[in-house]
Amino acid sequence: MMRSICRSYQTFLIICNSHIRRNGKRATSSVSWRTHNCGQLRASDAGSKVTLCGWLQYKRFDFMATLRDAYGVIQIVLPEDEVKRSLLSSKLSEANLESVIKVEGHVQRRPVAKINSQMPTGSVEIVAGELEIMNNCTETLPMQVHEHLNVTETTRMLFRYLDLRSSRMQRNLRLRSDVAMKIREYLWKKHGFVEVETPNLFRRTPGGAKEFVVPTHQKGLFYSLPQSPQQFKQLLMVGAIDRYFQIARCFRDEGSRPDRQPEFTQVDIEMSFVDKECIYNLMEGLVKYCWPEHLPDVITPFPRMSYQKALDEYGTDKPDTRFEMTLVDITAILQGCGIAIFESSPSSNFIIKAMTCPSGDKFLTKSTVDILQGNCKKLYNTNFLLVHVREKSWKSPISKHLSEKTKKKIMDTVGAKPGDLLFICAGPRETVNAALGFLRLQCAECLEEQGVRLRDPNSYKFLWVEDFPLFLKSEETNGGSDLESAHHPFTAPVVGEEHLVYSEPVKVKGQHYDLVLNGVEVAGGSIRIHHSDLQKYILEEVLKEDSSEMSHLLEALQSGCPPHGGIAMGFDRFVSLLCGERTIRDVIAFPKTSEGNDLMSGAPSSISQEDLDRYHITVPSGDSGS
Amino acid sequence: MMRSICRSYQTFLIICNSHIRRNGKRATSSVSWRTHNCGQLRASDAGSKVTLCGWLQYKRFDFMATLRDAYGVIQIVLPEDEVKRSLLSSKLSEANLESVIKVEGHVQRRPVAKINSQMPTGSVEIVAGELEIMNNCTETLPMQVHEHLNVTETTRMLFRYLDLRSSRMQRNLRLRSDVAMKIREYLWKKHGFVEVETPNLFRRTPGGAKEFVVPTHQKGLFYSLPQSPQQFKQLLMVGAIDRYFQIARCFRDEGSRPDRQPEFTQVDIEMSFVDKECIYNLMEGLVKYCWPEHLPDVITPFPRMSYQKALDEYGTDKPDTRFEMTLVDITAILQGCGIAIFESSPSSNFIIKAMTCPSGDKFLTKSTVDILQGNCKKLYNTNFLLVHVREKSWKSPISKHLSEKTKKKIMDTVGAKPGDLLFICAGPRETVNAALGFLRLQCAECLEEQGVRLRDPNSYKFLWVEDFPLFLKSEETNGGSDLESAHHPFTAPVVGEEHLVYSEPVKVKGQHYDLVLNGVEVAGGSIRIHHSDLQKYILEEVLKEDSSEMSHLLEALQSGCPPHGGIAMGFDRFVSLLCGERTIRDVIAFPKTSEGNDLMSGAPSSISQEDLDRYHITVPSGDSGS
Repeated sequence: MMRSICRSYQTFLIICNSHIRRNGKRATSSVSWRTHNCGQLRASDAGSKVTLCGWLQYKRFDFMATLRDAYGVIQIVLPEDEVKRSLLSSKLSEANLESVIKVEGHVQRRPVAKINSQMPTGSVEIVAGELEIMNNCTETLPMQVHEHLNVTETTRMLFRYLDLRSSRMQRNLRLRSDVAMKIREYLWKKHGFVEVETPNLFRRTPGGAKEFVVPTHQKGLFYSLPQSPQQFKQLLMVGAIDRYFQIARCFRDEGSRPDRQPEFTQVDIEMSFVDKECIYNLMEGLVKYCWPEHLPDVITPFPRMSYQKALDEYGTDKPDTRFEMTLVDITAILQGCGIAIFESSPSSNFIIKAMTCPSGDKFLTKSTVDILQGNCKKLYNTNFLLVHVREKSWKSPISKHLSEKTKKKIMDTVGAKPGDLLFICAGPRETVNAALGFLRLQCAECLEEQGVRLRDPNSYKFLWVEDFPLFLKSEETNGGSDLESAHHPFTAPVVGEEHLVYSEPVKVKGQHYDLVLNGVEVAGGSIRIHHSDLQKYILEEVLKEDSSEMSHLLEALQSGCPPHGGIAMGFDRFVSLLCGERTIRDVIAFPKTSEGNDLMSGAPSSISQEDLDRYHITVPSGDSGS
Repeated sequence: MMRSICRSYQTFLIICNSHIRRNGKRATSSVSWRTHNCGQLRASDAGSKVTLCGWLQYKRFDFMATLRDAYGVIQIVLPEDEVKRSLLSSKLSEANLESVIKVEGHVQRRPVAKINSQMPTGSVEIVAGELEIMNNCTETLPMQVHEHLNVTETTRMLFRYLDLRSSRMQRNLRLRSDVAMKIREYLWKKHGFVEVETPNLFRRTPGGAKEFVVPTHQKGLFYSLPQSPQQFKQLLMVGAIDRYFQIARCFRDEGSRPDRQPEFTQVDIEMSFVDKECIYNLMEGLVKYCWPEHLPDVITPFPRMSYQKALDEYGTDKPDTRFEMTLVDITAILQGCGIAIFESSPSSNFIIKAMTCPSGDKFLTKSTVDILQGNCKKLYNTNFLLVHVREKSWKSPISKHLSEKTKKKIMDTVGAKPGDLLFICAGPRETVNAALGFLRLQCAECLEEQGVRLRDPNSYKFLWVEDFPLFLKSEETNGGSDLESAHHPFTAPVVGEEHLVYSEPVKVKGQHYDLVLNGVEVAGGSIRIHHSDLQKYILEEVLKEDSSEMSHLLEALQSGCPPHGGIAMGFDRFVSLLCGERTIRDVIAFPKTSEGNDLMSGAPSSISQEDLDRYHITVPSGDSGS
């Protein structure tokens, strides 16, 4: 049994050890009672006097135990001497599992027959001379550390302090810390960046609908918690802090959204005297520098793709380029062939596209297809048309309306083979792209669930997406404008297209760029506007916003503002990809639920009348709104 | 004139250069348009083609200029070629001072007669081949960068982006960043600490009267912004993150207090399996490691002083040990001598003490003494009695009541010489200590204002203050208890005094320690309670607090909690001492006024009805409270 418990720590130990190796010899037992941690002793240490501290992982007949800490597990045995043995044994018998214990003793080699090669410390054991129970654990814990994977996420969050002891959470938090430090080392030490802390208590930004507010002693006046240090970093550029970074806490009040947190961390970067290429270079170097050693090497430079190409071929601005199944335009082939749905909306924006699901005929059942059709209708208000490509024929409602020549042409164009499924959509370009992009990812998941190795789990595909439009048609009319910024109002137009801002703003491309990793946006940034006139025109005339609230920025832009640009990396998301976790909650020490609740402490909570008075606010009684 | 402007940058440049030297060669021009910064070119670079970017610091006849960036200044000259010269000259003539300019050219040695030895780049100049005005500065700036010292702090804060260009703010922010990075390097790389980010949106802590609150979508429920990560770091210890640190943003709503900020930064540290000595070792190493090279070396270990001795000798728990003028007990000498004020309160707590101001007779005028007397009355509700020590006599109201023998005895005890002033206070011990401690510092300032070199500005005296009482008599009665924690309720009693908690809590000393530098508390911490029973007893029975709000912590303490302790360093304060600044506002990029206002952006500000509704709060009309 001991062997099996030890084995459950195997993966953890391998990572821990590679971890320590990677980062050189860090003194984990300096300035401490312990002389070594529980993972580091080897046969060559035999004879050494040691003091170890850790959690009681397992005990056997009160004379043998394993002690665990964040670095590993080690076997403890009681001495042969009967008096001593009986004294220590009675101590050990009082200790429940997960109690915290200090052991003083010496290292001894295990007999060859008892060497456990699964355990890094498996060739030695500690003969205890002294044993102290520093904190006895209650007998019944709400969850067992080694059963962490079998309990619900709610239990894990309620008892986070137990969940953190699991090898998985230890690895995640330690890797996160290492990556953050590597990023800082790269920016500060290699490139001369200055880390500047910017305020969290700030002024509400115009249109900042997702900002938390903080009441103050000054009646009716509120701070707001910024969504990013955007304004500050631009002001720092004006202030000659020409290379700024910060691993910054940001706040966003999005209500309940899956895998979002009301507070999150971003690696925030801004530089003067740069263009897009400089930022790309910097970031590619950064990713390489902080990349964990146990993952396959990153290849730079990263490929680039235009926003339009990403939409056309992948149906999304954050394409997962680990696999094909791209969207193919077959408008020219199908239009005019007499099928009603391909003719119904002959606007300039009308398009017919296909996405091929390889071997879909085998792996996608009728009921799966029905679910996909339902979701497609619900999310995009459109339907797809399905073609089962068979050896000699098509199985499809449109099969009989098409000549063999047309079918052949389609097959050649999309590259389909017998056994594949073709998803065909027709309609406005945006809808078709979005729906097929969604279907592409859904089909991929479906294939993988059935064992098809479509995306290599060890593949890390970075991609720059660029050439975004500067403005998008707004869904709501914001203060009279029908345009909104695709990124944010401070993004500069592409060089040479500045004049279009004044004449045809919807045609301007922005100097905005996103860094996508395996279909997830991990960073985004832009070259900023550094001329006051242009910034003012965009705020007032294009976006119809009240620029008076941004007067400090506009003034700064006419006080000698260097050309500048930057980027922000979603650090939680990036680390979760490195850890292979599906949710950012697993790389955050104390996360909140998607409803924003901290289950462990019970935040948020009600506050006293005294507090309400102190901040001059009241909570009106009555039905509880949203 | 150019020479004088350059000279004003002298100190800055020396610091910048030592700075760059200290931190090895950081690439400040990697991934950038510039090939060099404005401070790095030397005679050995002559002939190199360079591109420089910076702010136009000065120009002369439109054919000579100095360009400035964060790293230095350099002289630009236009080429001899007349066509080229006239073209560039007309560009230069359009640029106002503080405009941002890009210059491409080559480095040339200056003629010997024109070498400026005051300027690090003073042996070269750049012959411009191309010159581009990247951002023309408005003609009239609200403040000039080189006049930064002559403008009010209000102007500096209103136009912080200009103030940041000053050599002083550049030095302060860059030094701050360096010290933070060194601290991280020390903890992470040398001692295996893990940096963990803890939440800023948390649950209100019991008795946390200074916590800002944040309304949520959940009606009547609020987050609160924590004053420190105290609870989280203890939970991390329970969770086997045995070496935690964080350079953490903390929040404290103290209303208007001079030199406090509603948000501040602390270096937060916690370790398992340690005692006080371990923390002292760690911190002494940390201070040495991050200590700026241009300051005199730090000597470790730091001296230690008990809380009681600090109060008795310096009248404060954060003594400035750079100078003497300690408080001396003369009760035994003066009691019974027949002077009424020395007899009036014969309680066990009554004390008579003296503090000697050397040469005070010469440097403290009558009006100064009167001001001190007034402040003493106002702040401590007591008076002092003054003795002018003269060659042969005393000038003092008590002189005629005392025998020469008594006077001699007093002089010997306090070590006073002719020309000194003796400040004598009598009354309850706490009052006397506090008043004389205050007078000691006031006298020191007064002497220094008149040129007496009492405290070496290059002296950095660290001191551990320890053996604090665990509980203090509370000024207000909190929920029925007349005791409050001297530090916080999680501090452990001194080993061996645990039993006193249950019998005579007021006699227990705590394992709390403060690190004091030059009379300023720069860090404080403690060994924590790691047994649930003791923690519960203290919360419920000693402090009479509702422990149910801390149930998650109490539960954690019985789930296998290692013995642990930690410390938190006030980072803003520490950096301000290193920079020789009197206020922490000068080491914060975007500080708020002591009223909590951000003058540049206008925070805090009013918010919309929509926002109020969103968070289910109202601001009642009526007179504007506090």
